[in-house]
Formats: sequence, C-alpha cells, structure tokens
Amino acid sequence: MQTLRVELGERGYAIHIGEGLLADAGLILPQLDLSRVAIVTNATVAPLYLEPLTRALSARGVDAVSIVLEDGERYKNWATLNRIYDALLDHRCDRQTTLIALGGGVVGDLAGFAAATFMRGMPFIQIPTTLLAQVDSSIGGKTAINHPRGKNMIGAFYQPRLVLADTKVLESLPRRELSAGLAEVIKHGLIRDRAFFAWLEQNMNKLLACDQGALAHAVRRCCEIKAAVVAEDERETGVRALLNFGHTFGHAIESGLGYGEWLHGEAVAAGMVMAADLSRRMGLVAGADVERVIALLKRAGLPVAPPDIAPGRLLELMGADKKAEGGKLRFVLLEGVGAASLQADVPEGVLQQTLASSAA
Amino acid sequence: MQTLRVELGERGYAIHIGEGLLADAGLILPQLDLSRVAIVTNATVAPLYLEPLTRALSARGVDAVSIVLEDGERYKNWATLNRIYDALLDHRCDRQTTLIALGGGVVGDLAGFAAATFMRGMPFIQIPTTLLAQVDSSIGGKTAINHPRGKNMIGAFYQPRLVLADTKVLESLPRRELSAGLAEVIKHGLIRDRAFFAWLEQNMNKLLACDQGALAHAVRRCCEIKAAVVAEDERETGVRALLNFGHTFGHAIESGLGYGEWLHGEAVAAGMVMAADLSRRMGLVAGADVERVIALLKRAGLPVAPPDIAPGRLLELMGADKKAEGGKLRFVLLEGVGAASLQADVPEGVLQQTLASSAA
Repeated sequence: MQTLRVELGERGYAIHIGEGLLADAGLILPQLDLSRVAIVTNATVAPLYLEPLTRALSARGVDAVSIVLEDGERYKNWATLNRIYDALLDHRCDRQTTLIALGGGVVGDLAGFAAATFMRGMPFIQIPTTLLAQVDSSIGGKTAINHPRGKNMIGAFYQPRLVLADTKVLESLPRRELSAGLAEVIKHGLIRDRAFFAWLEQNMNKLLACDQGALAHAVRRCCEIKAAVVAEDERETGVRALLNFGHTFGHAIESGLGYGEWLHGEAVAAGMVMAADLSRRMGLVAGADVERVIALLKRAGLPVAPPDIAPGRLLELMGADKKAEGGKLRFVLLEGVGAASLQADVPEGVLQQTLASSAA
Repeated sequence: MQTLRVELGERGYAIHIGEGLLADAGLILPQLDLSRVAIVTNATVAPLYLEPLTRALSARGVDAVSIVLEDGERYKNWATLNRIYDALLDHRCDRQTTLIALGGGVVGDLAGFAAATFMRGMPFIQIPTTLLAQVDSSIGGKTAINHPRGKNMIGAFYQPRLVLADTKVLESLPRRELSAGLAEVIKHGLIRDRAFFAWLEQNMNKLLACDQGALAHAVRRCCEIKAAVVAEDERETGVRALLNFGHTFGHAIESGLGYGEWLHGEAVAAGMVMAADLSRRMGLVAGADVERVIALLKRAGLPVAPPDIAPGRLLELMGADKKAEGGKLRFVLLEGVGAASLQADVPEGVLQQTLASSAA
C-alpha cells in the first residue's frame, strides 16, 4: 500500500493506493464519528463490491446501510440526488453518519454532493472503482450534479476524509472505461510531467493489460500531481484550472451529444486533441508534440476527433460553459509536452480554425 | 455606521450596521470580482428596496440583474432554488458574478444556498431587511432549503463576503415580523449575556417603536455574540449549537403546523419557553427566571405556548430533527439567564412533562 496526503490544513486527508484495499475496514474505522455508514453505489458495482465492503464493516461493528442507484451519467441529476436524501432520511441517518461513495465518477459526484448538503454536511469517504475516479474525480473535493443546461452546473467543493484506491478492482472494468480513465492519466502527464508522459508511452500496453505494478504507479503519480495542484488552489481560482485541459471542448462534446453518449474520458480525449491543435495554432507547441498526443491517445483506445457536431454548435456550447468567465472564453493550452497555461485571449478566428479542422 | 468582523481566516468578513446603508454602493464595490451582480429578493421587498439598490450600483457602473421570488417560507424549496439557477443561466451569470440576497431569512437562505452551489460557488453578499435576518440568519454562513420531511434539511455552510444591516429598513417591517426578530434578539441575551437581557427588559418599548439607536445597539450586540460563537465553531460541532436554544421545539412546531403558518421567530419563542421549562424541571434554572423569559417574550408580542399540536406528535417531529444525532435527543438548556449548555441525556419522562404541561 502507498499513501499520500492532500495537504489542505484541517480539511487534509490521505489517499491509500494498493491491491485489495476495498474491504480494509481498518483504514475506514478511524475516520468515522459513529459506527454508522451509508454506502452509495450503483447497480453495476453493487453485485461486485458492495457485499465485501459491507461484510468487512459489519465484522467491525459498523452499522452499514446501502443506497443503490442506477448506473450512468444521465442519472447524475436532481432526481437521483433526492433518492439519496430520501434513503438517508428513511434510515434516519444524520450528520454523524459517514457517507461512502463506492463507484465511479458519477457515484462519487452524486454522493459527494449529497454528503456536502445533507443537513449541511456529513463525513464523506471515497472508494473509487474506476480508473477515472481513482486518478481524478475522487480527489480534490469537486462534487456536482448536472443541470439540463450544463454539466456539473450545480455542486460544491467538499473534501472527503479518506480516499481508498484499490487497483485490483480495475481488473473488472470494461475496456472502454479503462481507456476513458487513461485519458485523464495522459492529461496529468501532458499538463505537468513530461517524464511521466514518456513513461506512459513506454508502459501503455501494461496499463491496458491491468498490470498491477504499472497501474499503481500511474494512479500514484496522477494522485501526486492532482493533490499538489489542489493543495495550491482548492477552489480553482488559479492553477487548478489547468486540470481542465481538454475539458472546455470535452464538455461541449458531452453536452452536444447528450450526457452519457460518450464517456467523459472519451470526450476529454477528443477535447485534448482540439486543445493541442489550438495550442499549435497559437504557436505554443510544435506539430510533432501534437502528433505524440494523438498517437498516445490512439494507443489507449480513445477517440482523437470530436463526433459529428457542427462547429457553430460546439462554439455555442462552449459559450455556456462555466469557464466562460466574465463573458470571455479561457482556454488551457499546452506549452510543450508536460506544461500548460491558462490563456484568456484566444482570438475567435483561431478557435474557429481549430473547430473547422476538427470537424473535417 | 458600526463595523464588526466575523473572524474566520480567509473566510472572514465584515458586518456593517447603520441607518441608510442599503444603497451604499461604496461598501459593496470592493467585494466584487467583476462589475456584475445578481440580486435575489422577493415580491414584498422588491417594491421597497430593489430600485434604490440597483440604481446605486448602476451609478457605479455595476451591471445588476434581479431575481424576484414569491414571499414566504413555503417557497424555501427546491422549485424556487431552481428558479434562481435558471435565472442565473438566463442572464449568463458565472462564478465571478456576485449574488446579493436582499430580504429576510428565507431569501438569505435560498440565495445563499444558490450561491454555494451554482457552479460550485459564487461570491455572496447579504443585505438583510428583517430584524431576524439582521441579528441571526444573515451571519454565520448557514444556508438551506426545506425538504418535505424537514426544515433546513438540505443546505451548506457558505460564508458571505459582506453583511449590510440597514436599521432604517426595519421601520417598514410589519409588527409581527419585528416581534419574530425580537425572539432571536432575546435568545442571544438568554444564552450568553445577562446584562444584555436586562437591557432588553428596559428597552423593549423603544425597540418596538423602531428607535434607531436602540435597534442599532440590539443588532450590534447580537451580531457580536453570534460572530464570536461562529468564529469559535463555524460548522457547529460544539458551542455553536447553543444558538439553537428553543429551536428543537421550535422546528417541531413549524413542521407540525406546516412551514410558514407561524413565523420562525414565533415558533422559537414558544420553543424557548418550553426549553426554559425543561431546564427548570432538570433543576438547572429557577422558576423566577422562567417567568422573566415569559414576561419579556410577551412584551415583545410573541407567543409563549405552542399551538394545538398533540405532545406525542411534537415528540415524533423532534425525533426527526437533525439535532437527534446518533439516535439521542440533545437539548440546549438554560443555566440561569445569560448562560446555556448542551445536554445530551434528558430523561424522556422529564421531556414528556414539559410537553404535557405546555399543551395544557
């Protein structure tokens, strides 16, 4: 087991990474206020991992109730959030009951927002079961639900008390989900760590084969990068925005297709290619680097071009994106492999070139 | 103008108290990220105070949009919250738009929760227009909406950047609302400041006549008490719970009648009498002190007994209250006039005596 900390003062917490951590109740117990937890999971994850977790907790005297949601991004909405609230009330849970998210990004975002808002906040633990959640969404306290007019439009910053990333569970992930997680893994290298990007180029086959050592290394390095960025800028007023590389385009793709049509990581992969193309047109990165990005994403089994959505529609969807602060579009752009920066003044003509060439 | 600070480190903020502060744009401007605000108010307050505020801001180059809600506790729900979200999206507001709550406790709670959760948080300013909001709900960062199964069940701790308490606007308050605010004023004296309680006994007539000097003193002293308590315990893990004196009973009354039938302050007044009675039965306070409490509440025009709800039903409603942590009922009880403490082990028999005698 490897452990790192997200340094956020009184809101700081540990991330444990390793094989078989899922049912290690000994890691969970010290974080509970009372011997009472509510586990939020979904219908796909529950048959695989709910029982071992519940059994491990029960064996240590913890009263565990479970709330099983339907699986999918389209359920990340107010109706599902209300189902969680109702179940918590049915089970007479209170502010001293700990909420555990057992699942991927959707479960973590929904359960996290429920934990942030039920009785103004209850203790929260993340047990991410997808690669994407382990390297990205379970860390840093972003929680949210979607609004008909925008992804993650309603949410809160709310830190967990603990993150348990069990690399063994990744073996049960469908290949498409594994690839989607790799998009965020590649992103971490691209924006912050050239050597890690090169390591990914060398170890992509191992990752795709779920080699436990390679997975543990990749998860750890991503968590280190993300934890450092979050510690520096918890509420995304500065450097944390770099983690959104590829996401302005990606969110527009997801929104244009309807949430859940493409996986988040797939949309981000195509979005990263578009952002890399925009970086090249802005003279920030060489064409050869853009090719490296495309090649690695392809090897990871990811799309490298957007789906069939008109450039004008994508532009419109980006305008409604919450990164359009003060009426201007901001973009995270690459400055070579391993470095990125926030650019507030991208000429619209250049952006339109990227959109047109991507649609071609 | 008097100014005090809520000391919460990076989340600290100023409370300004005085006549005519409502339209003092000079106090607001330094708190804005961009020259853009969205003002949330209601149909009662808007005709009185929206235009002066908007005009003052516009004169300083601030783009101000307004969101006018229906008036009343029964609108403090998800549907109204969604109306705020939709209006923010319609006006293309973003995380750098500042949300201003102009109104009483319901507006402040709703707008505050919208500010806490729209795009994971936008800057927030409170301009409370009721006495209750000026002395209590606008300070300390509690935001919430009601759930069909409980008051303030869904919410967040989210601090404003500024509170402007204009005592002049209290002259337009209906007498019943003024009295409801006085319930919370009296509460602050009761739990924390014996001398202030005595001052209230001497100055109640001035307060009821909206004497500006008396109101400014009362608002200031309540804000000082509340700010100190909140600074010590922002998220209510300890001393802050004392501010809930009378509220366990009060929430049960509100819930039993249906939200909005009695004003919050009215329910708290009856709840404080019940809590004082329970304190006496527990041997913590003298009968003469309970009589002082009742006498002052009566002079303030407040109810001193609960409405016609069966004791068993009140007990049930208290069990569902969020202060029932870990399955046990906790009560804030008086230890004389000017001191209170949290008691976790009130025998059910004693509680039932209080409920039965109150119903008599």
